[in-house]
Amino acid sequence: MSPPDGTGAFTPTDRSRVRRRPQRARYDEAAVYGILDAGVMAHVGYVIDGQPFVTPTAYWREDRKLYWHGAAASRMLATVAQGAPVCVTVSFLDGFIVGRSGIMHSLNYRSVMAFGRARLISDLGEVRAAMDAFVDRLYAGRPLKLRPTTDDELRRITLVEMEIEEASAKVRDTGPGDLPADEGWPAWCGVFPVETRIGPALPEPGMGTGGAPTPDLAPYREGARLDDTLAAAAAAYGLPVST
Amino acid sequence: MSPPDGTGAFTPTDRSRVRRRPQRARYDEAAVYGILDAGVMAHVGYVIDGQPFVTPTAYWREDRKLYWHGAAASRMLATVAQGAPVCVTVSFLDGFIVGRSGIMHSLNYRSVMAFGRARLISDLGEVRAAMDAFVDRLYAGRPLKLRPTTDDELRRITLVEMEIEEASAKVRDTGPGDLPADEGWPAWCGVFPVETRIGPALPEPGMGTGGAPTPDLAPYREGARLDDTLAAAAAAYGLPVST
Repeated sequence: MSPPDGTGAFTPTDRSRVRRRPQRARYDEAAVYGILDAGVMAHVGYVIDGQPFVTPTAYWREDRKLYWHGAAASRMLATVAQGAPVCVTVSFLDGFIVGRSGIMHSLNYRSVMAFGRARLISDLGEVRAAMDAFVDRLYAGRPLKLRPTTDDELRRITLVEMEIEEASAKVRDTGPGDLPADEGWPAWCGVFPVETRIGPALPEPGMGTGGAPTPDLAPYREGARLDDTLAAAAAAYGLPVST
Repeated sequence: MSPPDGTGAFTPTDRSRVRRRPQRARYDEAAVYGILDAGVMAHVGYVIDGQPFVTPTAYWREDRKLYWHGAAASRMLATVAQGAPVCVTVSFLDGFIVGRSGIMHSLNYRSVMAFGRARLISDLGEVRAAMDAFVDRLYAGRPLKLRPTTDDELRRITLVEMEIEEASAKVRDTGPGDLPADEGWPAWCGVFPVETRIGPALPEPGMGTGGAPTPDLAPYREGARLDDTLAAAAAAYGLPVST
C-alpha cells in the first residue's frame, strides 16, 4: 500500500522496469503523477486475438486510478472493460536534440507507462460523479454552471477505471551528449525546445455566449503553457499538485 | 498496390475500420501521411505473453514504410523485430472543446493508427542509409556536415522497418456541438486551441559551436509551429508534402 499523499512509489517488476537508459527512469508517485497530470490524452494499449491496438483517448487521474470513457460502440472500451491487461502511455515531446554526429541526434521527452486492468463503472451515480469530476478537474466549478446531464445521457457513456498496478516514468531533458570523436567538428549543436501552449479562444458562434471566457476558464488564457494551464486547473479543483 | 505518388488509399478491414464516429475517419494516403509526417514521436503497441506494451519512440516515414530504431537492449525492438503484429499510433492534441453541458466537452485531435509487422534491418549499408535519411529528413543536408558514423556505432543500433498494411486517420477539428436541451444555457462555449511551437534555441555550451543555428536548421526557428517546421524540413529534404 502507498500513503495517500502521493509520496509513495511504484514497485517495478519485469513488466515495468526500464531497461534502456535506466538512469532516466523513476518509479515514485511524484514523478509518475507529475507527467500523468500534465496531459489529457493517453494512448491505451490492449490486445484482441493477439493483435495489439493503441487508441488515443482523453483520461484523468485520481490517486492511483486512471479514468477514461467513450460510447458503448467503442471496441477499446468493450475490450478493456472486461478486465483485459492494459498499458496506458502518456508522453510529451519536449525538444529536438541536434548533435555533431548522427547518433547523437535525439529527442527530449517525458513519458509514463502505466499497467493495470480496467473495470467498468456501471452505477449511474458513480458515472455522474466521475464525469462531473472530469469536467471539474479541467474547468474548476464548471459543472455547476452547465445544463445538468440526464440519466439517459449517462447511460450512453461507457466509463472505466484502472487502478495503476505498476508504472514507470522516463524523462530526457538534457542537451546533446558529446563523443571524443565529435571533438572539434564544426556543426552547430544544441536543443530546439518544443513548447505547447493555449492559442486564442474561439467562442462558438450563434450560441449567444460569445465574448471573453468566464473566470472558471482563466487557466486557458492565450499563450499559457499547457503544463501551467493544467496545473492551475488542478489547483483550482483541489487536486494536490505533483512536482 | 498503391500508386507511388501518395494518392492511393488504404483498404480498411475489421482491424482498422473506425467504428466510433466513422464520419471523422479517413483511409486515404494523403490524410494518413499528412498526420504521420506532422509528428516525430509515435506510440508503438506490441504484445509479450498477452500483455500489451505501448512504447513512445521516434519514427519516420518513407512511402508506405515506417522506421524506428533504438539500442539492442530494447525489449520493444527485440519483440517487434521478430515480426510480431504491431500497432503504431501517432496523435496530436489540437484543442479543448468547452460545451454547455458536460457531455459536450471534448478534445480536438488528429490521429493515425497504422498496423503491420516490422522487420529487422541488419545490413550495415541499409542501416547507414536509413539513419542518414532520418537526420536528413529532419535537418536537410545535415548528414554531410556531421562527423561520420562508424560501423561499430551502426552495429549498436537496432533498426526496424514496418510496411503499413492498414491505416486509419481520425480527426476532430470543430467546435462544441449543441443539443436542444442546452439551448439558452448561459455557459461560455467554444474552443481553446492547443498550439505546439518551437522555442528559443539552446546552443550546447562548451562545444565551440555556439551562436545562431546554421541555415540547415532554419525550419526550427523560434515561434514556428511544429507542423510548419516539419513540413518545411520535409520539403527541403525532398519528401512529397502531404496535405
